[in-house]
Order: sequence, then C-alpha cells, then structure tokens
Amino acid sequence: MKELRINGRRLQERIAALGCIGALAGGGVCRLAFSRADKQARDHVEALMRQLRLEVHIDRIGNIAGVRQGEQAGAVVLAGSHIDTVGSAGMLDGSYGVMAALEAVETLNEACVRTRRPVAVMAFVNEEGARFMPDMMGSLIFRGDLSVEDARSITGIDGTTIGENIDRTGFAGDEPPGALPVHRYVELHIEQGPILEKEGCTIGVVEGVQGILWLAYTLRGATAHAGTTPVELRRDAAYVAGAVVQFVRRLALEIEGQCATVGSITLQPNLVNVVAEEARITVDLRNPDSGRLRMAAERLHAFVLETARAERVEVDRQIRVNVPPVSFDPSVIETVAAAAEGLGFRSRRMISGAGHDAQIMASVCRTGMIFVPSRGGLSHSIREDTAPEDLESGANVLLHTVLSLAQSN
Amino acid sequence: MKELRINGRRLQERIAALGCIGALAGGGVCRLAFSRADKQARDHVEALMRQLRLEVHIDRIGNIAGVRQGEQAGAVVLAGSHIDTVGSAGMLDGSYGVMAALEAVETLNEACVRTRRPVAVMAFVNEEGARFMPDMMGSLIFRGDLSVEDARSITGIDGTTIGENIDRTGFAGDEPPGALPVHRYVELHIEQGPILEKEGCTIGVVEGVQGILWLAYTLRGATAHAGTTPVELRRDAAYVAGAVVQFVRRLALEIEGQCATVGSITLQPNLVNVVAEEARITVDLRNPDSGRLRMAAERLHAFVLETARAERVEVDRQIRVNVPPVSFDPSVIETVAAAAEGLGFRSRRMISGAGHDAQIMASVCRTGMIFVPSRGGLSHSIREDTAPEDLESGANVLLHTVLSLAQSN
Repeated sequence: MKELRINGRRLQERIAALGCIGALAGGGVCRLAFSRADKQARDHVEALMRQLRLEVHIDRIGNIAGVRQGEQAGAVVLAGSHIDTVGSAGMLDGSYGVMAALEAVETLNEACVRTRRPVAVMAFVNEEGARFMPDMMGSLIFRGDLSVEDARSITGIDGTTIGENIDRTGFAGDEPPGALPVHRYVELHIEQGPILEKEGCTIGVVEGVQGILWLAYTLRGATAHAGTTPVELRRDAAYVAGAVVQFVRRLALEIEGQCATVGSITLQPNLVNVVAEEARITVDLRNPDSGRLRMAAERLHAFVLETARAERVEVDRQIRVNVPPVSFDPSVIETVAAAAEGLGFRSRRMISGAGHDAQIMASVCRTGMIFVPSRGGLSHSIREDTAPEDLESGANVLLHTVLSLAQSN
Repeated sequence: MKELRINGRRLQERIAALGCIGALAGGGVCRLAFSRADKQARDHVEALMRQLRLEVHIDRIGNIAGVRQGEQAGAVVLAGSHIDTVGSAGMLDGSYGVMAALEAVETLNEACVRTRRPVAVMAFVNEEGARFMPDMMGSLIFRGDLSVEDARSITGIDGTTIGENIDRTGFAGDEPPGALPVHRYVELHIEQGPILEKEGCTIGVVEGVQGILWLAYTLRGATAHAGTTPVELRRDAAYVAGAVVQFVRRLALEIEGQCATVGSITLQPNLVNVVAEEARITVDLRNPDSGRLRMAAERLHAFVLETARAERVEVDRQIRVNVPPVSFDPSVIETVAAAAEGLGFRSRRMISGAGHDAQIMASVCRTGMIFVPSRGGLSHSIREDTAPEDLESGANVLLHTVLSLAQSN
C-alpha cells in the first residue's frame, strides 16, 4: 500500500476537463455558485462519481458526496473541496481538491484496496460567496449553522435568489444536509500564497486557518483650500488615512503571525487642491492566534483615535467580518505530515491565510488540510497556477492521508 | 476725499442681485464660464456699467471693461476680478471684486470726484477654468499669452468648444484683447483661507501669489492576497502612497512658507482583501519662494523614489501644473497698506494661496491685491461667506487705493 500512487496525467486531464466548463474567452474560469455553469460542472462531477461506482448523495442545498464503501459501515473519511469559482478564477481553486479526491478513489479502485472505513468525496456548494453571501455556505449548511430555507431566500448580486436558481436548474437533491456521518475531513488545496514556492517546499501541512477581522474606518474632517489653509487649521482626513496605512504595516512587522493590509482608500472629494473631508479605509487583519488578532485590532484602534483626535477628525469604525482562528486536529495534522514524509516530499507546517470549508468542518469532525504551492502566490486570478508535479504530489499526499485515516480507529 | 466711503448696503444688494443669476436650488451659485448663466451675469454687469456712465469695451473673448474718464487720457487704473464660478460656488468669489469696483466708481460719481487718470472696472472671463481649461483665461488672453483663435477651439467638460458657446450666446465683443492701456491693476477678493479671520484682521495686503506645483504620482506594485502574502513579498502601492502622505505633511511643517497637500488617492483594485497593485496620488505644493518650492518637490521626489524602491514599486511622475510665484509691485502694496491704515483697519501682509487674474496682470502693469476674511476659510463652497462689514471695509480700501493710484503719477 505504501507504493500506491495516483495517476498524475489523468488528474491533469480531469482538472482541464472541468476547467472547460465555464471557461472564459480570455483564459480562466467563471462558475459562480448556482449558475448554469456551476450546475454543468456538478453534473460532470456526479457522472464521474457514478463512473467510479460511488454512492451519490445530494442534499437539499446541492452538496454532492460520493461514498465508497469500506469494510465497516458508519462515518466516512471525507476528502473534498468545492467547484464553484469567483468571477475570474483559475482552474485549480477548489476544483483541484475535488478532482484529486476522485483520483485518490480511482487509485484505490484500481488497486482493489478495501479500506476499513468508507471513504467519500465531497463537493461543497458556494464556497466562494462571490454571487451569494455568505461564503463557505455549503459547509455551513452541512454543519447546521444555516437552514436550507434561509439560504434559499438569499438574494445574490444579480437580484435572483438561491431558491429560484436551484429550482430552475434542478441543482439540489432531497437529502437533509449533514446526514452523512463524517469521521475525518481532509481538504487538499492550492496555497493561494507565495510561501511554499519561496521556500522550495512541495507540501504545506496546514495547522489551522487564521482569524480574520475586516474593519472599515470612516474618518471625517473638513474640506479646505489646499493653497490657503495652514497645517494647524486643517482637519485632513487623508492625512489620518496615510498615518493609518503606515501603522498597519507596523502591526504586520511587530506582532507575531500578523497579516495586516489596507487595500482600500476612498477620499471625498478626492481633488488635487482640496483637503479631503472624508476618508474611508479598510483594514484586513489576520492572525492564527485570537489573542494577538484582538491585540492588533486594539492597538490599531487606539492609534486611529489618537491620530484623528490630534487632527480633529471624527472616527467611525465598522466591523465587517470577524471570524475567529481555527486550529486543525493534531492527529490529522500528524497524519498529513507523515504521508508527506513517507512520500519523501519537502514540507512545512503552515497556517492558511484564506478561508476554506475545512475551517467549518473542523467543528464537525477532526479535520486537516494539505497545501501545494501557488506559482507567484497568485490566487483568484486567471494567472493562478501550480506545477503539474506539485499537483501530483499533493494528490499522493491526500491519497495516503485518506488511506491512513480510513484504516485507523 | 479722505472721508469718501462706499455704500455698504448698496454693495450688499448688488452682490445679492448678481448671486441670483445661476443660483442653485440648494443655495450657492453655478455660473460656469461661457454658459447662459455667465452670459446673463455679463449682461447684468454691462448694464450696470452703462448705468454708471462707463464707456464699455468688450473684447473678442468677452472680457468686459467699463472706463470712467479722468482728467487726462491714457492708461487706466483698473480694478476688477471675474464673475464666472466653479460648479458649486458662493456669491463672493470673483463677483465681490467686480461689484466692489463698480461700487467704488459709483461713489466717485456721487461725490463728483474727477480723478487724474481714468479709472476702469474689469470682469475677466473664465478665471475658474472649471468648464474650460486653462484657468485665468481672460487675463492670459488680455496679456497676449493665448490667442482668441486658440481659445475658441478649446473643448470643455461638456464636449462643446468655447467658440460655439461664444457664438451661440453673443458673448464676445469685437475689440482686440489687451487694447486697453493699463497703468495699475488692483483686485479685491475674499481670502479663500482662514488666516485673516484667525488673526482678527480685516484686510490682507497681498504681497504676491505663491507658486504652484501639481504633481501626479502613479505607483505600480502588484496585487497579492491580503491573507497569505508576507510583508517582505509584497509590492504594496497603497503602503508607498501612505508613506508619501505622511512625508508631504513633513514638507509643510519643515519648509518655510510651504503648503503641501495630498487631496487625491485612487487605488486599484481598491478591495479590502487585495494588496493594491496601483496607487495614483496627487500632491499640491505651493510656496511664495520658487527656490523653496523646487526644494520641496525635489525632497518629495527623492523620498518617493527611495520608499518605492524598498517596496519594489515603480514610480511615474507627471507635472500637471507648474506656475512660478508672483510678487506684486511694492508701490501698489504700499498704496493698499496705506489705504487700510488710513481707514483704521487692522491688516496684515500676506501671500495669496489661490491663483488670481492679478498674478497674470502683474507682468502687464504694476499690480496689487486686497483680501478680506473668509468665514472658516471656506472657499469654492456654497458655505463660502464674509461678514457684511468686512465686505464694506474691503471695498473702502479698494476705493482709496484706486483713488490714490489714479491721482499719483
């Protein structure tokens, strides 16, 4: 069993075939959740599952699971991800994890391996949240945090509801979400960041997902003529915004594990010769440690208030997103690490910067993730890419992780 | 003659009457240059000039001068400003200077004062440049820096040319611009800044107009995932922009007489969770001293290059506006100061932060300016305001300045 390997070429072809569904003229893929392209991709995945002789379960929101029976009945070792995409995506985000799980199952089929526990492949619906919020919707519903009824009434960016889309395309099955008992969940995904590539590692053994805080600051000063108003009489919202941008970088440098980004600044009236009356800026803070994340937010807020007061600028803060950090299960983490080591791959422990269904599943069952390098760290981009040998390596780590989890108690 | 005073109430009424032309529903005025409202306001001014028995001269771009004969013929003592406005203006910017000059003439008429030199009132066209660039167009054409033909072919923000607008509204006369010989030029204007109000002065004796440099920086980095990209791998255009905003404030604090403002920041893609690929920022630098202005620009550019290099961000700089400082004539400055002192007003020497036709006229003839306080320093705003007594005081200073200049050699 130690010699078992997936078929890298077949995996490539499967990823490419799925990538043809919703392909964009200029390259890349658009398969927004609950769209026709998403449905077409789901039909493709379902057909593959049946071809692999998996028992297909589709729940009332559209999560698709394909179960391969084990020696004993009961909770499955589940591997999967999602096949919906953002508006202008590459072929790998999500799809890779689903196709690699199917490839692992086919490898088990070909080798006539009989596992102790059943193994299943999952394609969660609407992980991206690009058309209908919230993101990670399929796993949230699977976990029971959102009802199918509430989800169906959610209106998307095009004004339609999820319910309408599901009914029109015949998207959903009739099983209750979360009915499938899950023993362990493992998700293989591209890193979406530059760390593995930069460090020459093939495998990321993911220990958790960092917490995310999205803050929206509105700074209100007063317009003034840029040529006639001395500094001491200004209430310059842009000046405070600039100071915040600098301070946010300091947080990233000074606090362990801290990501901190100002990605959006919007000034009013935004004219060359008028002191800005208003600045709206966003701050994206992430840290795998909830205490440090809270400290970063507190230090930031103290700085904003102090700087704004000195400039006589008013401050309003909105918390847009507040997702606590998630730690994966130590035993699953060690299983992934052992699989990577057994296959001779250079790996490193790491934290996921982006959100994944695995972070939702982590409170359903013992969960872990496997990362492979993203070229240039690019993500949510049609230029997203991973070397074919890395895709193959990741799928082999998934195969041996699943095997190991399905054989143990 | 020392006891001669303008009629403050009549001046108020004239300003209010002119302010009804192009009045905005929510308050304020919109009389964009060469518009119907601008034409209507010009007709109003022309009628007033004729009522005051002035000899009206309208040149081929539409500058209107009304001449009151003196004991001797020849070059006039010219007082004026403009009556066009920005899109959302108050009633005072420009209009005050023209109405006060007419009020001064009427005061001379009523007192049957015969001046040695002729006195004239000027309303220059298109000082604001809000619809058709460049600003200060009327005085530039008067000075001979721009031909009427070239100006007529300029296309405005609404896609029409100045020529079309002039011909449709019968805006222009047939005199060649600059034909009126000018002995001295004096412009009375609201300060458009907070200094006089803050210091409790009634009159600003304007010694010059500061030089203006408008710089547009484009900073090009690379997008990256805000949750997965470590600081050392980022090429964050927003970070460099923030540093520039901070440095610009330092320039204002460290360099004598320096105004320095970042009023506009535009990020791409401007999303909460994406490191900004591009930042476009403007810097407005002003200094009455051309050497210091140049130094400020050089220090800024060195800082931008150094900061951007450290972040591996590319820099492009465009110089949008580069107007050297203008010094007004010492004898006119002293005449204004003496008039203010003779009337018992608290005054201070100052530099104009904003541009005015007077800075163009300064190379045509000996020139000066008079400022009155702007409430809260507000300008180019429907909340622009000046106390009635200050408007009256300024007009009296204008009257005695004009009188003095028209009587001397």
